[in-house]
Formats: sequence, C-alpha cells, structure tokens
Amino acid sequence: MDDAVLSRRSLIVTGAVGLAVPAVGAAVALTGSAARAGATRRVTIYAEALPGGLFGYGLEPGKATVPGPILEMYEGDTLEITLVNTTNQRLSIHPHGVDYSTESDGSPFNDSFNDPGETRTYVWRSREMFAAAGRRFMPGSAGYWHYHDHAMGTDHGTGGVAKGLYGALIVRRRGDILPDKQFTVVFHDMSINNRTAPNTPMFEANLGQRVEWLAIGHGNLFHTFHLHAHRWVDNRTGMLESISDPSPTIDNKDLNPGSSFGFQVLAGEGVGPGAWMYHCHVQNHSDGGMAGIFLVRNADGSMPPGAEDAIHRFQGHMHTTSTGDDHGGHGA
Amino acid sequence: MDDAVLSRRSLIVTGAVGLAVPAVGAAVALTGSAARAGATRRVTIYAEALPGGLFGYGLEPGKATVPGPILEMYEGDTLEITLVNTTNQRLSIHPHGVDYSTESDGSPFNDSFNDPGETRTYVWRSREMFAAAGRRFMPGSAGYWHYHDHAMGTDHGTGGVAKGLYGALIVRRRGDILPDKQFTVVFHDMSINNRTAPNTPMFEANLGQRVEWLAIGHGNLFHTFHLHAHRWVDNRTGMLESISDPSPTIDNKDLNPGSSFGFQVLAGEGVGPGAWMYHCHVQNHSDGGMAGIFLVRNADGSMPPGAEDAIHRFQGHMHTTSTGDDHGGHGA
Amino acid sequence: MDDAVLSRRSLIVTGAVGLAVPAVGAAVALTGSAARAGATRRVTIYAEALPGGLFGYGLEPGKATVPGPILEMYEGDTLEITLVNTTNQRLSIHPHGVDYSTESDGSPFNDSFNDPGETRTYVWRSREMFAAAGRRFMPGSAGYWHYHDHAMGTDHGTGGVAKGLYGALIVRRRGDILPDKQFTVVFHDMSINNRTAPNTPMFEANLGQRVEWLAIGHGNLFHTFHLHAHRWVDNRTGMLESISDPSPTIDNKDLNPGSSFGFQVLAGEGVGPGAWMYHCHVQNHSDGGMAGIFLVRNADGSMPPGAEDAIHRFQGHMHTTSTGDDHGGHGA
Ligand SMILES: [Cu+2]
Ligand SMILES: [Cu+2]
Ligand SMILES: [Cu+2]
Repeated sequence: MDDAVLSRRSLIVTGAVGLAVPAVGAAVALTGSAARAGATRRVTIYAEALPGGLFGYGLEPGKATVPGPILEMYEGDTLEITLVNTTNQRLSIHPHGVDYSTESDGSPFNDSFNDPGETRTYVWRSREMFAAAGRRFMPGSAGYWHYHDHAMGTDHGTGGVAKGLYGALIVRRRGDILPDKQFTVVFHDMSINNRTAPNTPMFEANLGQRVEWLAIGHGNLFHTFHLHAHRWVDNRTGMLESISDPSPTIDNKDLNPGSSFGFQVLAGEGVGPGAWMYHCHVQNHSDGGMAGIFLVRNADGSMPPGAEDAIHRFQGHMHTTSTGDDHGGHGA
Repeated sequence: MDDAVLSRRSLIVTGAVGLAVPAVGAAVALTGSAARAGATRRVTIYAEALPGGLFGYGLEPGKATVPGPILEMYEGDTLEITLVNTTNQRLSIHPHGVDYSTESDGSPFNDSFNDPGETRTYVWRSREMFAAAGRRFMPGSAGYWHYHDHAMGTDHGTGGVAKGLYGALIVRRRGDILPDKQFTVVFHDMSINNRTAPNTPMFEANLGQRVEWLAIGHGNLFHTFHLHAHRWVDNRTGMLESISDPSPTIDNKDLNPGSSFGFQVLAGEGVGPGAWMYHCHVQNHSDGGMAGIFLVRNADGSMPPGAEDAIHRFQGHMHTTSTGDDHGGHGA
Repeated sequence: MDDAVLSRRSLIVTGAVGLAVPAVGAAVALTGSAARAGATRRVTIYAEALPGGLFGYGLEPGKATVPGPILEMYEGDTLEITLVNTTNQRLSIHPHGVDYSTESDGSPFNDSFNDPGETRTYVWRSREMFAAAGRRFMPGSAGYWHYHDHAMGTDHGTGGVAKGLYGALIVRRRGDILPDKQFTVVFHDMSINNRTAPNTPMFEANLGQRVEWLAIGHGNLFHTFHLHAHRWVDNRTGMLESISDPSPTIDNKDLNPGSSFGFQVLAGEGVGPGAWMYHCHVQNHSDGGMAGIFLVRNADGSMPPGAEDAIHRFQGHMHTTSTGDDHGGHGA
C-alpha cells in the first residue's frame, strides 16, 4: 500500500498529520433539528477512482475519500442513495444494519449493482424496536453500522473493499447523545483506512470534547482495536445506560471483517491532553504499521507539552525494531 | 471437501437447494407441552460413518447427518444420551453449557469416550440461576450451546470435529419464545456444515415465520457470520429483553472455534421476501465458498420474483473472480 | 519455549503441577478492609531476567514470575508503581483500563519507559462512573484488566510481551464479591503463560470454592478460551447482575491480543470434583499444547477418584495423535 500517492483531497477529509479531521457537519446528517421520525433524505454518492489504485465514495464529484463519508439517520428515517459509478469497474453500495429490498442489496447475487458508468438508486430504511412477546422487543435499526462495495472484483466485493470502498453508517435512537467530533477507523488487512504508519490518520480533539469513534473491520485478517488512556462500555452506545447496566468496560475489542462498533469518549478526560496512541494490539500488526495518533490538544486548542516530540518520534522513529542501545537515554 | 458424496439422507435433514429444511419436530425437543422442570429424557444417538469420509450423529440407525440433530431442553431438565459408536474409530460426545460429571466429560483425559463399536451413556444436566450475593445470581444453563466429538484423532477430537461430528444444543429458560423453524450453521475451517458453495445449505422460510439461527464455530480458522437484511441483539436471546436492554444490535458476529450463539428473526420482516445471502465476512472465506442462501418465500410459500434467478446465479456464476467485462449489463 | 528452565521460584507463584496456586494474599490487594475510596498505594515492581530467556515482573527482588503478580484496586484508588529495571533491556509497564498521564503511558512514543538499569515511577488512577446525560453514565474503571511491557524489542513492547512481561490488573467496584482463589491465564501465541502442555499450570481449588479466572490474550494469534464443566455470564462480573440481566451465559470466549476478561465460578458446583480441562478451542492450538488442568479437589482437600489417573494421562499420553488402536479399551 503506497500511501504517498493518496491525493491531498482525500487527506483533507480522512484526517492526516497536521490537518483538521472532518467536523460532524461533513457527514450526511439526518440528526439535525429538522430531522423527525419517518424523514426521507435523498443523497447522491459518487464512486470514483483515486490515485494509487484506490477507489472511494464521495458526496460531490471529485471529492471521494477513503473511508467514505459518515452517513447518519435516526430510527424511522429512510435514506435514498443515488450511486453514480464514475469508474470502469462494476461496483455497488451494501449497508449493514438497515432494511433494504433485494433490489437494494448491492450484491451481484441479486442483480443489484452498478455497471461501469451506471447510475443506480439504493433505498435504505430504518425503524424502531417493536414488541415481540412478554417484555421483549424485536430490535430497531439503531447501531454503529457501515457500508461497503459488494460487487467489484468478486461477487462479495473483495476488490472494492480492498481498494477503499467502505464507510461508516450510524442509525441513532431518539435521545442519543450527539458528539462534537467523529473519527472513522477501518482496520483492513495490515492497514488503517488503507494507510500504514506513519501515514495513518492523526485524529485531533480539544480536551473535554465528546469524540465518537467509528470502528470497522474489513479484509482477511483478524484485529483488536486498542485506544490508550480512554475506555468505553461494550454495549450499544459505549456508555453505561443506567447505574445497573451489566456491560463490561473495555479498551481493546475484536475488530474483524464485516464487524463494526462505536463509542464516545471525552477527549483526555481524567488523563490530560497529549498524544495518545490507537493501534491494533496484534503485535506484528502494530509493529507493521497499524498504529496512529489521537492528539488531544489543550482546551483552547494549543499544543500540550511533549505532544510535538511524540509526533516527531512517531513519524521518524517508530515501527522499526529497536534495542536498549538504540535509544540514548531519556528523561527530564 | 467433496460434497457430492454426501448421502441424500443427510441432505434431507441438513437442508439443501430445493429441499425443505428440518422442522422443529425433527429435533429432540424437551420443550413441548409435556416438559416440566426436572424432566429426564433418554435418547439414543448413533455415531456413524458417512460417504466421503464424513462422520455424523443421528437419532436413528442410518440417519446420521452433518451437523447432527438439534438437541433441546429446558433449564432443570436432564438428558441421558446413549451413544452407540457404529464406527471403527474411538469417539465421544462432549457438550458445552450443561452440567456433567467427569464420567460424561467425553474426553480421553477423563477416560470418557466410546471405543470402536462401544455403547456408552452420557448424562447432561441443566439448572436455573441461583442467588450469589446482593442482586446477583450465578448463571443457569440457558443458552445456545453445542456438542461435538472430543476423542477421534486427537485427545481434543480434532479428527471427529473435522469430519462432521458436531451439532446444536439449546437450553431454554421458561418463557422463552419458541421458533417456527431452526437452522444450524457450523463455520468450520473453509466450510459451512462441511460443505462449500454452491453446495452449502439453502435454508427456507415463509415471509414472517420466526426463524431461529444456531451458529457454531469449529476448526482452526477465525470467521465472522453475516446475514443479509436481518439483524439481532447481541445478548442471550437475540431480542431486546426490555425497552432498556443496553445490548447492541448486530448483523455480523465473530464465530470462532468452540463458540456458539443463536437468535431469532422474522423472515423477510421489513425487507420483503427474496433470496438473501448468509456468509462468512472474511473476504477470502466468502470468495472461497463460505456463503449460502436464506430463501424467504412469500407468505403462502410461493417463490418471490427474482429468487429463482438469484439461486441460479449462485449455483452457476458465483465464487469465481469477475470483472466489469464478465457481466454483460443488467437491469430492467 | 523450554519450560524446564523456568526457575522454581516462579513456579511457586504462577502455579504448576502439584504446587498450590497463589492465594489472594499474594496479590497487591487494595481490596482489604483497610481500603477506602481514594486510597493511594505505593508498590515497587522489579522487572528481571529469568532463565530460558524469559523476563518477569515481581513484587520483591528475585521473585519475578510469568505472569507477573495480580494487581488490584477499588474504583477511586491510585497505584503508584516504582518499576526497577534490573535488566539490560529497555522496558516499561503499560496498564489497560486505568487513568494515566502521558508520563505514565509506558510507551517510547511518549518517552515513557525505563532504560536498562533505570528506576521510574508510573501512576495509575481509577475512578467511579459519572453522569453523562439522561440515565447514562460515562464508565468508571472497574474491570478485569491487565498490564504489560510496551518498550522492549519494538515500540509496542513485542519483545517484552513475548518473553513474559505481562500480568493481571483488577479494578473492583464497591460491593463486588471477592473470590477465594485467583488464576491468571495468558493465551500468548501457542502457549499458556509461556508454557505448553503438559507443563502448563495446573490450577487447584476445593469443591465449592469461589474461583476467579483472569484471562488475558497476547501475541500474534487468535484464541478461544474454554473451560470444561463450568460457565459464566459474558458481562462485567461473570454473574447475572439481576434476574433480568440480558447477557448470554458462555463457556468459550475469544481471547485475542490485548483483550482480557474475568469471571468467578464455584469450583465443581453441580458437576462434582475431578480433573477438568481448560484449553484453547482452536483445534491445532489445543493439540499443540494450549491445554491445562483445573483440579477440583474434594471439599476437604483430598483427591477425588480418577483425578490422579487423569493427571497421569495428561502428563504422559496427551497431545499426540491417537487412533482407536492406540487405546487398548477402557471402562469400569
Ligand atoms: Cu491487526
Ligand atoms: Cu470465515
Ligand atoms: Cu489458541
């Protein structure tokens, strides 16, 4: 994977060292004040070839990114996606978690894909929980989901997924807490968002900001997502839903192909600002480049002490084997 | 794995293209109206050699299948299994989730197995939760479990598991909702139920039927189970146990060796009838044949539009690499 | 991995065939009667080279073990660790789950490690849950966590983890039930606690004792932890937190690098005393030596019938391929 050939355009949106990460406003948000149950939103998505053999989804022509834009809706809403295939490959868009008929399955199996140059509409619906029996309910659509190609290369979209055709999809329940910032992290074979250290995204927030992490797994390998100095609850929202919520609190979670999860943390809360690592905890994956930086700035946006040194170390010295001799001492 | 040599007998029970899947009545059900707490059921299981080098468990002589029959009980019930080993291999039956003494462990380690030709009884007990301290309880036996050989080939039953000696075991809690249909899906190395596409089981239900999926992992590889257009809650039952159940809703779950889970969906609910895929989401596993069809028929049992085409595509065209050129256009 | 070279000292603490496992009192316990919210405990930990190329953490000079000592605290407590590096390698101690500033991160990335021969203090803080919005809470620190090196060999501590620099960390919530005994089980590449069968630890308890299992994953491979004849709830404590706790009950769980979980069982409860196996359920891992014995003695501490035979079988006959012919019959 040659990250150097990624266009600057995509860097701006996916986040890179020294650049701001996308604000919530960059996503297709059905969660604003205008949203209400049953709203239908129409959006055009452009599937495009990118430099370096990558492909991406974007909300405007020429703006495709890896990963694609964050798509959001509330339970009950419908998303009508007009997918414009500007490439010379067959491809599609297949969502997890929401409702769709076979026509919107996104699989060649159901004859649901875009031929090269073709435009096609996919409809994703969502819903609230509904009674089953006793106190039980069949689940609604709320969740931290994702979408991806299901047609390029093989009938399972292996080629499209490998080249970057993936993104996050959030279905919120009424009353869910909205974040200040959002980061999409895709663990995909030996890469993060099809990039390897030190070119992995650096995500930035100010101390105390509510940051939503969207973690997605793809490809052929197994992974575990670990975030330093922060933790979350292993349930639907990542927070304890009540004082008696039995869910475990974790800071390391399996992130395997086709799975996704999300959670919110308060940046640096209880630990202070600084440069914190996120990485795959499989040792030869983190050593091989599946690591990145979560930069928690001071509350006023200024750089905390030591953070620039840490970033410099990450860019210059990391991910090579070292011994005690390699490091000429350290300290105050 | 040559699926062509599987006997027609086993196809009937395990489900195959164009054949009905087993009804609930085909399982050893302790959950009927006659069942009550503390009931003891005696059942004879026959371990038999099958064509193609496979082995299976069955409830009658000559009726062994891969996977074996679904065994069910309510918390508090006991299952006494007389295992008849009709093969020339040592083997056993080892359950997950229930109570057994060392004599019923099913492991050579505890001298608990059947020599070739030997008959031996294994006793599995179950129980309800009981108070620990405070509001807490030690768990009862309720769960979506499984059973498998623990003695053929190696002391861990690696040979027997590899050849098909596995099946689902359900322990229900009083008040659990019973399904209309049940499907057992074993992800085992690069196979589903020791079969690969397009010979993987096609599971069938009518629109709106309550379908229970029993997912089991075996072998040496990691997998993720994904079902198109349906989802479930990642808890004990697969449904929200109350309006405040904090569990996440998912449609893709790790299914690794020795693990199992189950859930119920309403077939096609909110998405309509059609041919839906279930598959391992590890890309080279799905491409390699770990995919199958969940055929949701119309409510009256008739075929929905497009389903036969999809099945034909699956049988003829799937699981080969394709490019945009391979597919000569499509659409209405 | 040559387990024979492990020093006897370390065997005493980590548990081995025929030796008692560590009592709770052997751990750094902040959970005694003297503990209260906000307590600060200072402890010195010695990182030492061990025979066979291993490294360990210990609470006294010359007492390092693999895994290291169990560290415990209540939510709200602080642990100040003075890490003495007696080795000629750079190394550190990095915790999961608790709060620490960048100075205590334990990563070379944050210039937080011990050079060879250096002594350095790391501060780990913990806290209780605090209100988010609505009924929700941001999580406290309670959990079954772990700690490990993050600096030896690579910037991710791959060398230190591979050589044994890991251990369990428990943060308890007020009111949590305390166990009678504790066992740390680290699934690490093809080993358990850097040992393979038949030299894996034999954990012992008397019938009915409350045993706490601390399971940790490390290295490059995926694993599933299975315990025979016992089960637990897949939530924070391993027990049902109320009669309506929706969490599933399991006896097999993914245990992948960087992850950890814990649970309590009543030894032999409902199944009787005996020699029970715990093992990785990945077949070629268990066959390759990732298996051990949980010896449940009679309530008075005497050996139950058959247990010595089982242990003998494990030590002499296990983990070689066998056929029906290899075993000259058995039975009463
Ligand atoms: Cu990884
Ligand atoms: Cu798979
Ligand atoms: Cu393993």
